[in-house]
Amino acid sequence: MKIKVFDQVKLQPDKLAKIALTGTERFQLDLYCVAPGQAQKPHIHDAQDKVYYVLKGAGRFSLAGREETLKEGEALVAPAGVEHGLENVGPDPLLILVLVAPPPKH
Amino acid sequence: MKIKVFDQVKLQPDKLAKIALTGTERFQLDLYCVAPGQAQKPHIHDAQDKVYYVLKGAGRFSLAGREETLKEGEALVAPAGVEHGLENVGPDPLLILVLVAPPPKH
Repeated sequence: MKIKVFDQVKLQPDKLAKIALTGTERFQLDLYCVAPGQAQKPHIHDAQDKVYYVLKGAGRFSLAGREETLKEGEALVAPAGVEHGLENVGPDPLLILVLVAPPPKH
Repeated sequence: MKIKVFDQVKLQPDKLAKIALTGTERFQLDLYCVAPGQAQKPHIHDAQDKVYYVLKGAGRFSLAGREETLKEGEALVAPAGVEHGLENVGPDPLLILVLVAPPPKH
């Protein structure tokens, strides 16, 4: 039943890898594996809150137009309605635990 | 706006320290700091899902009567209605990122 998060790491050459780890009707937990230079463009969720928690590496995150650099052990919340995005501007892979509540509808 | 999770670590001699990191109407994110020998007794939330993610150390978690040992980098989901608890049976402090969705009502 437990999830070994680092066993799920997978870097993709063409774009950020978004790996679904687990979820319920109340939340979704993803792992983002971001190679140097890869990014997720700023975007908005109308009815979902998102939390980023950086597991490895560092990245430049945008939140409501402001930029923050986050590294291992740091977290950031993007509430519903607030534009957010990220970019790996460092030399190492950026691994992020990403919680979305409630889960996005498909 | 960012949260430096490890700056929030605080061990209490008498019981597990539950530190509120952040939250919205959709989720709550806590840091549990569990000294060796400390535990959270098995309990049930009727309408909240919980995710544990172990940041440091190792612990014995119970989920629906089964036991799992989790260490750094491992996660476990306790869905609403399922009994769950934990104990630090190791020699080192156990630090856990704990997500609850939606947040518990007070």
